[in-house]
Order: sequence, then C-alpha cells, then structure tokens
Amino acid sequence: MSKKAFQDYYPDYFSHCYGCGRLNDHGLQIKSYWDGDEAVMIFRPKPYHTAIPGFVYGGLIASLIDCHSTGVASAAAYREEGRDMDTDPPFRYLTASLHVDYLHPTPIDESLEVRATVKEIKGRKIVVSSTLSAGGQICVRGEVVAAQVPEYLMPE
Amino acid sequence: MSKKAFQDYYPDYFSHCYGCGRLNDHGLQIKSYWDGDEAVMIFRPKPYHTAIPGFVYGGLIASLIDCHSTGVASAAAYREEGRDMDTDPPFRYLTASLHVDYLHPTPIDESLEVRATVKEIKGRKIVVSSTLSAGGQICVRGEVVAAQVPEYLMPE
Repeated sequence: MSKKAFQDYYPDYFSHCYGCGRLNDHGLQIKSYWDGDEAVMIFRPKPYHTAIPGFVYGGLIASLIDCHSTGVASAAAYREEGRDMDTDPPFRYLTASLHVDYLHPTPIDESLEVRATVKEIKGRKIVVSSTLSAGGQICVRGEVVAAQVPEYLMPE
Repeated sequence: MSKKAFQDYYPDYFSHCYGCGRLNDHGLQIKSYWDGDEAVMIFRPKPYHTAIPGFVYGGLIASLIDCHSTGVASAAAYREEGRDMDTDPPFRYLTASLHVDYLHPTPIDESLEVRATVKEIKGRKIVVSSTLSAGGQICVRGEVVAAQVPEYLMPE
C-alpha cells in the first residue's frame, strides 16, 4: 500500500470537505490508498454513528463511499496520465451520482473497509465501484459517477 | 403541515439514528412532515458541512435524503392502513438502496428543503422519490427503496 493518502495530496482549497478534508476539524478525515489495482480505506465508526443500536448509520456509509470514490477518481486520473499526485495541474472530482445498495446491516463495533476499483474512464467522468466490508463480510455495494470539477468551481 | 414530526413518533429503540434520532445528541435530528401528498423536511447545514468552500457536502445531502425517505416510508405505511403513527404495531423502515443525482452544487448558506413523494408501495418495500432545493432551485434528486425492518432487528 502506498504511504501517503490520496487526500493528503489535495490542494488546500479542496481540503475542507466534511468527508475527506484534512483541514476540516469536524469531519471524517478519511484516508484512501492504492493497494494494487484496488484502492482501500479503513474507517472506525464512532459509537454515535448509529442506525439502530449495534449497526452503522447508512448516511455515514454513503459518505465513506462517496469520498473514497472521488479520491480514487482523482488518483486514477493522475495514474492514467502517468503523473504523480503532487504535480500540476491538480485533478479533483465531485460526485455526479451516488448509488448504494445496503445488503446486510453493518455492525458498528468493527472497522469498516471500503475497497474500490475504477470501472470506466470516459472523458471528464470516472465510474468507481466499491464494496464495504465489516469483519470480512461484504455489507454494502456502491457505485459513484465522479465528474472532474468544472472550471467555474476551481480556485482562481 | 402536520405539527408533530414523523420522527417524534418513533419508539425509543428506533430513535438513536445519527440522521433522525431524537435521542442522538451528536446527530442531525431531522424532522419530516406531511404537506398534502408530499413530505417536507427543512435543514440548515452547519458551516463545517462543506464540500468545497461555499457548497454543501454530498454525504450530508445523501444522509438527509436517506432519513427523510425512510421517515416518509414509515408515515406512508400508517397512512395506507388508516392508522395514526402512535398506534401499534410500529412501522419502521431501513434503507435497502439509495440513489442520489447531484444536478448542481448546493449552496451552503441556504436552508435546504427536501420534498418527497411515495412512488410505489410493494409488500414490505416502499419507493420514495425526492428533490433537494436551495433558494428555490432543485439541486439534487434522490430515490430510496425502503424496506420494513425485518423481525430479527426488532426489539424483543
């Protein structure tokens, strides 16, 4: 696994995200890494990230899948160009659509592992598929269509 | 609009949810109400619910749509049986699948309005469609398949 997380390469302007921004003190601060052709992210939910007692809140799960997937899209865009993530211009992706299938209730007392693969790169859009596992069981499947941040949302 | 929120009828066991539980002090504590055949929920994001500066985090939006939709499913199940929400047995729904299309970036300095309608009731599943608006503009569309909580997850 690579040592520096995708999110640690994001320019400051893109590092305020509640899900993955290293500059958001209130946020989840998720960290994603390549592991071969997959990208992995581990997250330990807090006791208050409850759905019903004993199980993880689905909105948190959607958030983990969302931010991990846009991170993977960004890393994949650099990889596609054969560039390191600390080179310019920066690639940054937003979520165009998010789909989550909750297959089993996710236990709250386990570390959650999200594994993602790039399914398709098509122009400014990248489709990322993922699974979320707890205790070795796949509990959730996700798919995100990530779109490269349009010019008008880039910092000047 | 009705005066008591759907979530205020949930039994205590189902009121710990990070998104909608009145007993979760760390959570979002969303409140949903009928407004004719639609159900509405208003939420004011915190400054730290950021995606990129000035815009709302997509994971928060997914969470609002998720919990509002399961609340609507619950309320619709009672309505279908012609029962008040404080009668037994309680109806409670979990998310089977969540789909969110982010059409426009959602400004963070506005109150967000989620409006939902029941698209289909089919056995233990209810499909709920929704929009999220800010400042009168629809920014997001959502669709949730909500499933009635299975017996093994009900309190004894």
